[in-house]
Amino acid sequence: MRTLIKNGTILTAENEYKGAVLIENEKIIALGLINECKADKIIDATGKYVMPGGVDQHTHFSALCNVGNKDTAGYETTKSAVVGGTTTIIDFAPQDPWKGLIESIDYRINVRAKGKACVDFGLHAMVTYLMDSIFNEIDMLPAKGISSIKIFMAYNGSPLHVDDGSFFKILQKARNVGVTVFVHAENGEIIDFFRNECIKNGQTEPKYHYISRPPFTEAEGVRRAIYLASQTDTPLYIAHMTCRDALKELLEAKGKGIRVSAETCTHYLTKTKKALDNPDFNEAAKFICSPALRDDEDCIALWKALSKGLLTAVSSDHCGIDLSELKQAGRDNFTNIPNGSPGVGDRIHMVWTNGVVAGKISKQKFVEVISTMPAKINGLYPRKGTLEIGSDGDIVIFDPSYNGTVKLDDNPNGVDYNVYEGNKQIGRVETVLLRGNVVVENAKYVGEIGMGKYIPAKMFAYCYDLC
Amino acid sequence: MRTLIKNGTILTAENEYKGAVLIENEKIIALGLINECKADKIIDATGKYVMPGGVDQHTHFSALCNVGNKDTAGYETTKSAVVGGTTTIIDFAPQDPWKGLIESIDYRINVRAKGKACVDFGLHAMVTYLMDSIFNEIDMLPAKGISSIKIFMAYNGSPLHVDDGSFFKILQKARNVGVTVFVHAENGEIIDFFRNECIKNGQTEPKYHYISRPPFTEAEGVRRAIYLASQTDTPLYIAHMTCRDALKELLEAKGKGIRVSAETCTHYLTKTKKALDNPDFNEAAKFICSPALRDDEDCIALWKALSKGLLTAVSSDHCGIDLSELKQAGRDNFTNIPNGSPGVGDRIHMVWTNGVVAGKISKQKFVEVISTMPAKINGLYPRKGTLEIGSDGDIVIFDPSYNGTVKLDDNPNGVDYNVYEGNKQIGRVETVLLRGNVVVENAKYVGEIGMGKYIPAKMFAYCYDLC
Amino acid sequence: MRTLIKNGTILTAENEYKGAVLIENEKIIALGLINECKADKIIDATGKYVMPGGVDQHTHFSALCNVGNKDTAGYETTKSAVVGGTTTIIDFAPQDPWKGLIESIDYRINVRAKGKACVDFGLHAMVTYLMDSIFNEIDMLPAKGISSIKIFMAYNGSPLHVDDGSFFKILQKARNVGVTVFVHAENGEIIDFFRNECIKNGQTEPKYHYISRPPFTEAEGVRRAIYLASQTDTPLYIAHMTCRDALKELLEAKGKGIRVSAETCTHYLTKTKKALDNPDFNEAAKFICSPALRDDEDCIALWKALSKGLLTAVSSDHCGIDLSELKQAGRDNFTNIPNGSPGVGDRIHMVWTNGVVAGKISKQKFVEVISTMPAKINGLYPRKGTLEIGSDGDIVIFDPSYNGTVKLDDNPNGVDYNVYEGNKQIGRVETVLLRGNVVVENAKYVGEIGMGKYIPAKMFAYCYDLC
Amino acid sequence: MRTLIKNGTILTAENEYKGAVLIENEKIIALGLINECKADKIIDATGKYVMPGGVDQHTHFSALCNVGNKDTAGYETTKSAVVGGTTTIIDFAPQDPWKGLIESIDYRINVRAKGKACVDFGLHAMVTYLMDSIFNEIDMLPAKGISSIKIFMAYNGSPLHVDDGSFFKILQKARNVGVTVFVHAENGEIIDFFRNECIKNGQTEPKYHYISRPPFTEAEGVRRAIYLASQTDTPLYIAHMTCRDALKELLEAKGKGIRVSAETCTHYLTKTKKALDNPDFNEAAKFICSPALRDDEDCIALWKALSKGLLTAVSSDHCGIDLSELKQAGRDNFTNIPNGSPGVGDRIHMVWTNGVVAGKISKQKFVEVISTMPAKINGLYPRKGTLEIGSDGDIVIFDPSYNGTVKLDDNPNGVDYNVYEGNKQIGRVETVLLRGNVVVENAKYVGEIGMGKYIPAKMFAYCYDLC
Repeated sequence: MRTLIKNGTILTAENEYKGAVLIENEKIIALGLINECKADKIIDATGKYVMPGGVDQHTHFSALCNVGNKDTAGYETTKSAVVGGTTTIIDFAPQDPWKGLIESIDYRINVRAKGKACVDFGLHAMVTYLMDSIFNEIDMLPAKGISSIKIFMAYNGSPLHVDDGSFFKILQKARNVGVTVFVHAENGEIIDFFRNECIKNGQTEPKYHYISRPPFTEAEGVRRAIYLASQTDTPLYIAHMTCRDALKELLEAKGKGIRVSAETCTHYLTKTKKALDNPDFNEAAKFICSPALRDDEDCIALWKALSKGLLTAVSSDHCGIDLSELKQAGRDNFTNIPNGSPGVGDRIHMVWTNGVVAGKISKQKFVEVISTMPAKINGLYPRKGTLEIGSDGDIVIFDPSYNGTVKLDDNPNGVDYNVYEGNKQIGRVETVLLRGNVVVENAKYVGEIGMGKYIPAKMFAYCYDLC
Repeated sequence: MRTLIKNGTILTAENEYKGAVLIENEKIIALGLINECKADKIIDATGKYVMPGGVDQHTHFSALCNVGNKDTAGYETTKSAVVGGTTTIIDFAPQDPWKGLIESIDYRINVRAKGKACVDFGLHAMVTYLMDSIFNEIDMLPAKGISSIKIFMAYNGSPLHVDDGSFFKILQKARNVGVTVFVHAENGEIIDFFRNECIKNGQTEPKYHYISRPPFTEAEGVRRAIYLASQTDTPLYIAHMTCRDALKELLEAKGKGIRVSAETCTHYLTKTKKALDNPDFNEAAKFICSPALRDDEDCIALWKALSKGLLTAVSSDHCGIDLSELKQAGRDNFTNIPNGSPGVGDRIHMVWTNGVVAGKISKQKFVEVISTMPAKINGLYPRKGTLEIGSDGDIVIFDPSYNGTVKLDDNPNGVDYNVYEGNKQIGRVETVLLRGNVVVENAKYVGEIGMGKYIPAKMFAYCYDLC
Repeated sequence: MRTLIKNGTILTAENEYKGAVLIENEKIIALGLINECKADKIIDATGKYVMPGGVDQHTHFSALCNVGNKDTAGYETTKSAVVGGTTTIIDFAPQDPWKGLIESIDYRINVRAKGKACVDFGLHAMVTYLMDSIFNEIDMLPAKGISSIKIFMAYNGSPLHVDDGSFFKILQKARNVGVTVFVHAENGEIIDFFRNECIKNGQTEPKYHYISRPPFTEAEGVRRAIYLASQTDTPLYIAHMTCRDALKELLEAKGKGIRVSAETCTHYLTKTKKALDNPDFNEAAKFICSPALRDDEDCIALWKALSKGLLTAVSSDHCGIDLSELKQAGRDNFTNIPNGSPGVGDRIHMVWTNGVVAGKISKQKFVEVISTMPAKINGLYPRKGTLEIGSDGDIVIFDPSYNGTVKLDDNPNGVDYNVYEGNKQIGRVETVLLRGNVVVENAKYVGEIGMGKYIPAKMFAYCYDLC
Repeated sequence: MRTLIKNGTILTAENEYKGAVLIENEKIIALGLINECKADKIIDATGKYVMPGGVDQHTHFSALCNVGNKDTAGYETTKSAVVGGTTTIIDFAPQDPWKGLIESIDYRINVRAKGKACVDFGLHAMVTYLMDSIFNEIDMLPAKGISSIKIFMAYNGSPLHVDDGSFFKILQKARNVGVTVFVHAENGEIIDFFRNECIKNGQTEPKYHYISRPPFTEAEGVRRAIYLASQTDTPLYIAHMTCRDALKELLEAKGKGIRVSAETCTHYLTKTKKALDNPDFNEAAKFICSPALRDDEDCIALWKALSKGLLTAVSSDHCGIDLSELKQAGRDNFTNIPNGSPGVGDRIHMVWTNGVVAGKISKQKFVEVISTMPAKINGLYPRKGTLEIGSDGDIVIFDPSYNGTVKLDDNPNGVDYNVYEGNKQIGRVETVLLRGNVVVENAKYVGEIGMGKYIPAKMFAYCYDLC
C-alpha cells in the first residue's frame, strides 16, 4: 500500500519546499518531485502545509488524579491528540503502590494502553512510589526502550516526592545507561509551608494556589536539580518551565557548560495567573496546575526563550480531569483541587496561532518545538519528529487559512471543558496520517481505537549531546 | 538533464539512510526509494556515503599576503577545494587601498573570480582599508547578497586594523541590515608589544611567533569583541578560535544570553605549537598562522567544544602561500613570515579521520560542522549545506574504506607544500557534483575552470537566532 | 581600681605598637605612653603581645549531645576558654522540647550559665525544636540582646531540622528586626541517604562518617541557603565552612552582591579526614564532627580564604563530649557517635602556630579572625573584640617565645582528650584579664567560677553592611 | 611640645568615643581619659568630632593641563586641602617629555612641592610619557617610597596613553615589587571615534563631552584592565569609577576572586550630566572632567557601593583650572576644554553633608572612605588615616552643628570658581592639626606655606591583601 501526498508545501524544522511525500509500509520512502511514482492512494494537499505529526512529550493519560481512586481520562481519549495533530505522545508510567518501574511500564503497555491508544506512544519511567528497589530497575530501562525517567521534587509527604538523596542516586544510575532524567522542579518544602499558612489563614480560594507557589520556589528547584545533575554529569530535562526566575537558572547553567534543557507548556505561553483570580470557582479551578500560571512578563520571556532555543519544546502536560466532578473536590480548599489541565488536542493550533501567526516564532521553529525536538529528546528521532526517508508516515496536513475560535465540541480532549474555549484559532489540522494510515479527515477522527503502538526509544538521546 | 545517485548511504547533519538522490537542473528534486524515476545519468554509490558538498566559510584566495605585492594562490586553484569535497567557499573580499567595500566585492566577483572559480562562492565583506565611507556601505551589503563582514582587531598600525570605535559603529550598522560580524579577535597591542620585545632581544626564530601571541591575547580579543557586540546586540561570529581561554569567554557569554558563535580550523584541531619548535626554518614556517598553534590540551578542548555544539564549524583559513618563495621573507625575522597555511583541500578528510574515525564526533556532527552550519551561518542554507528537496545538487560521494596518507600530489592546494603531508588519511572524496555536474571523478578534477558561481546570501542568518 | 599593663606590644586587627593599656571599672580608659597615669596594679608585659581577648562565636556548652539525655560539658568548663585566651563566647541557646526561643534563652542565662560561666557570653537563638510559635518569637530577640539565630539544614527527621519553608520564614522575620541568620548548611536528605546505604552495606566504621557526607552535600546546602537568603535579602552567616566546593559558592554569591559571610573552625584548618581512617576506633571517633574533616587541599584553600577575607572568623565549634563514655555510643555504628570535638581552649594557639608562625596570615589578620570579626558579626563590637577606649578590659598577654607541644593537662577543655594532643605549639596565653580582672596567671586559671556575664548584642550587626 | 585635645568625641573608621588625644613630637602618644597627662597646649573640643585628617589619594597639583604650557594650580594652593580637612594627599608625579619616572618623582618632591606644600603628601608614579625605559624604573619605586603607579588607558594618540602591551608589562613589573597599579579606565579608541563624529557633525557644545563618552566606554576599560590584571595577578585600583556598568564589572571580578578595588569622586556622587546641558558655556564647562558625569541612578548606585564596601574611597580628582582663562580654550569645541574640576577643599564636608547627614553612610564609613582606606591603599597606614598610638598627629576637629552653603570665598581651592557653590553644607572643619601643629583655626589657614612633607609609602599595600 502506497500513499502519495502531493501538491502541498512540506514544512520541517529545517526546511520548507513544494513537493510530495510517498509512504509505503508505514514509512516515508520518497520525497520531492515524485509524482511519477506509483501510489495506491493520492491525497491532494494544495494550499496546505504538510508537516511531521506532533510529538507531545508530557501527557498524563490514565493516571491517578488524587481524588479518591479516580484516574484521568484514559488512552481511548488519545484520539483527541490525533485530531489535534499529535501522532506520538511520551506518556508517563507511574508506579502503583509497591509496584516496580518495569512492572509499571509493562502494565501500561499491556493493560492500560492496549487496545485503546489511538496514538503512537513512548513512555517515561516515573517514580511515584519511591522504594529502594527502583534504583537497580534503572539498569533495565534500556531493554524496555525507555530512555527517560521522571521524578518529582515537589509533593513532599506524598510517595511521589523524591528526596535529594534518592534523586542523586537516580541521576548516577541513569547516566550509566544513557537515560535522561526529567524533573518536576519545585521546592516542595517551601510550597507546603506556604499552603499550610494559607489554610491556617482561611485563604482557601483557587488564587492561593499561585500565591503559595511563587516563581522562586520553582527556580530553587531548578537550581538544585541542575546542581545535583552537574555533580553526576547527568543530562537533565526540566519539565514545564514557567517563569523568568527559572529561565535565569537555566541560562546560567548553560554558561557553565552543564547539560540541561527544558520545555514549557501551551498554557504557560498563553494564560496567566489572572485566570485564577476569577471569583467563579469553576472558571478558576480549570487552571489549577503545578507549577502555577505566572504573569504576562513570564509569557513574553518564555516565547523569547523558545525562539532562541533556550527552551526546546512545547508540551501539553495534558490531564483529563473533569470539571463537573473531580475539580469540585477543592471547592472549599484549593489544596484539594486535582492539579492539571487538558490540552493535548489544542497544543498545535495554539502554538501556531499565538506563535507563528503572532510573529513570535518561525514556521521552522514551530515544527521544531512541537515535533522534532521532543522526538530527539526522547530518543525517537528520526523515526518520529520529521519527514525524512525512513521516518514513520506520521503526517499532518494543516490548513493555514482556517480562521475561527476554539470550541469544546471540535475536539473534547476527553473532558467536559476546554481551557482555551473561545480563544482565537488560526489554522487547523485537517488530515492526519499515523504510520501511513489516514486517521483524521476533515478534522474528524476516522481511525480505529487501539491502533496506536508502543515505540521503544534509543538511549543516550539528545540531552547527552548538549554543551 | 537528470542525474540519479543510487545505492549509497545518504548522510546529513540530521539523518543517515539508504536511498537515492535525483538531480535536475542543478537542484535536488527527489530523495529516497526512487529508482523508478527516470534519469539521464546514473551513478552507483554502493558502499559509499552520499553527503552534501562541504562549505568552507574561511578562505583567502587571491589575497595580498604582505610580501611585496604578491597575492595568495588565485581562484583557479579552488579546484583543490572541490577535489577535497568542498563545493562552496565563503571567500573574503578585501579592500585595496582607497577602494570601498562594494567596489571590492564587485571587483572580486567580476574580475578576480570570473572565469577562474571552480567552486561556488559567497563573500564576506572585509575591512582591510578603514575609511569613513565604509560605514554607509554596510547598508548596501544586502543588495549585493553579502550577509557578513569581517574585521581584524589585530594588526595594529596596518590599514587592516579596526579600532574599537570603528568596530562599534560597524556592529551598529550591521545589525540594522541583518549582517553578521565576523571578527579576527586578538589583542593587537599586546601582540605588537611582545613581538617588538622578541625582536629587540634577537629572538627571531619562528617559535617566537607563538610565544609573542599567547592564548590570553586571543581570549582578551574575544572577550572585548563579545562585550562590544553585546552593547549593540549584534550577532557576532568569532573566526578561528584556538584555545581554552577563548572557549571560556565564549561559554561565559552564552550564559549571559549574548548572541555569539565561533569556528575553529583544521590545523588548530590537529597540530600544535610544537611544530614551530622545529629548528628547520622551512618546517616551522609552514605553520605560521594567526592566531598561533596551541598545545595538546587546547586541541582536546576544541574537539569537545565541537562535539557539544559550542563551536559550530571547522574552516580551513586557507592561504595559498608558497614556501619556497614567499615564506622565505621571514627567514631572519619571524614577524616577516606571511601568515597563513593552505588546507582547503584537506579539511574534510582531516576532520573525518581525526574526528569521526577517532570517535570524537559523530557522522552527523561531521556533516554539520563541515557543511550544514557554515551554510546556515552565512545565509546560504538550505540552498547549500544539506541534501534537501530544492537544494543545489552539490554532492560528495565519500569512500570510507580508503586508508592512506596525505600526499602533496594528491591535491596540491595550489602551493608547494602540504602541512598534513604524511598524516594518516582514512576515507576519501571520490566523486563530487557541483550543481548536478560531475566535477571530480576518481578523486581527480574533471570539471571546467571557471564554472563556480557567486551565490548571494540571505540576511539575518543563523547567528541572529542564537540565544 | 585601675590596672596598667605596660611595656608590651599592643596588637589589634588594625595596628601594632608599643604602649600601655589602662583599665578602670572594667573598661579600657587610656592607651599609649601613659606610664604617668596612676594605677593600683601594674602588669609588666615586656616581650609580650597585649591583644584583645578572643571571641569564639561557635561553642556548645551544656548542650544535649544525643546520647541518652547526656549534655556536653557545662559552663563551669568555660574556664578552659579563658585559659586559652578566649574571654567571650557566643554560645547557643537550644530549645528543649516544646520550649520557645525566649524561654530557652532565659533558661540558659538564668539557670545553665548562672554562677558557672567563667567567660563573658552572648547567645545565638537556636532552633532545635521547630514549632509555629517560634516565628513570632523572632520579633522579641532584640529586646533580649540576641542578634543572631542559628538553624540546621541537616539532621532531617530530627526536631533540629529546619525545612526550607520554615527557613524562608525565619529569614523574613529575622531581616525585619536586624537579626543575622546562622546556618549549618548541609543537604540532610542526601547525607541521610548515604548514611543509610553505608549501614545497609555494613559500613559502620568512623571513616564512613566523611564518606557519607562528601563536600558537595555541604556546598549544596550553602548554595541553597544563599539562594533563599538572597530572596529575602537577609544577611546570612555560614557556620563551619570546610571545603573548596563551599568556598566556590560563597565567592560566587559575593560576585552577585549577596550579603553572606562564613567562618571556618580550628580543626578544619589543621586536621584532615585521614584522621578518620585510623583503625583505632577511639582515635577516629575523636574527630567525628559535622561537616566532616576534608583533605589537605581544602585546608590550604581555607587558610587562603581567611587571609584574603573571604572567610571572616575561626571558631572552635567546641563540644565537650567525653571519649571514654559518650563517644563509645557509636562503636558499632558511626551514625551513633555524638558529633563534635572539644577545642575552645586551643583555638588561639593553634591559629597562631599554624597561621601566623607558619606565615599563612599576618598578626593583624590573626586578631581579626579570632576576636575582632566575631565581635562585629555578633553585635558585640567595640565592647568586645578590640583594644579601644571604652572597650571592656578583656586582654590577653601572649608570650610568643613559648615553644612546646599541646598537652591535655595544660588545659583540659572539660573533657578527657584533646584532639591536638602532641601538636606543636608556638606561643602561649600567659595572662588574661576579663573586664579588668586577672583570671589567668602563668597560664593557670585564677579567676572565680561564675564571674562571666551575659553580654547583650546590638542588632543589624556586621553582616547587614556586607556588599 | 605636647598638645592635648580634650572633651571631644573621637571618631575613627572603627569606633566613636569620648576621650582626649595627646600629641608629642608630631605623633599621637596617648588616647582616652588622660586629662591627667601634662600638656603644653590644650584644645577644647567640646561638642565637636575629633577625627583623623583626611587623605585624598587623587589630586593633580602643578600638572600640565593641556592648554598651552599652562599648569594647574600649584602646591601653595594645597592649603585649600588643609582648610577642607585633608592633611595628606597622594598627588601624581607626571613625566615631562623624555623624563623618567624616578626623575619626575625627584623633581616633584625637590622642586615642585618644596617650600610650597601645605599638606603632607605621597606620590603615585604616573606614566605620561611612555618610553621603554620606564619598565625597569618600576623596580626602583620602592626605594623612593612609591607604592603605586597610575596609567591612562584613554587619551589615545597622546603620550599619556598606555597601550595594552605596555600596560601588561607594567602590571608584571609592579607585582614583583609590591606596587599597586592605578588605572584611568576608559576605552580611548571608542571615545575618540565618538568625539570625532561629534566634531564632524558640528556638535561642539560641552554636553557632547558626556555624549561622546557613554558609560559602556568606561565599563569596557574597567573590564579590560581587570582581565589583564588577573592575568598577571597584580592588584588593581580603578580610579574615579562613575557608573553602574562599571560597578557591575567590579562586582563580577570580585566574584571570581580577582584583586581589584576602586574609588569614586565627590562630584560623581553629587552631580549629574544635567550640569553639562546648561546652555551657558561657563556653567557647563566647569563640570568637564573624565570620565564624564552620569545620571541620578548612577549616583544612587555609587553611594550604595560605598556603603557596602564595593567602593573603598572618595577622592577629589582635584584639578585647579581657572574658568576665566583655561576653560575658555574649548568655547568653540568641547574637546579643547581642559578636563578636571577643583574640589580638594570640599570633599570632606560634601561627603559628610550628602552621605552622613543624608543617611547614606555611617560616620564610621565616612572616616573610612575619606581617610582610613586611602591611607591603607597607598601604604601610609597607620601613620596616616587613623587616630592610633604612633600615628601622625593629623587631626580634624569638626563642628557638626554648622549649617550653611558652600561659598567660593570660604576656601577657594586655588581657582576662580567652586563647582559646589551654593550647595548646602552641614558641618564644618574648624581646626586642623598637621603632625601636631595647628594649621587651621576657625576654618582659616594659620599654618606656614611649605610645611608639608613627603611621606614615603610601604609596598604591598592594602590591595595586595584583597580577595
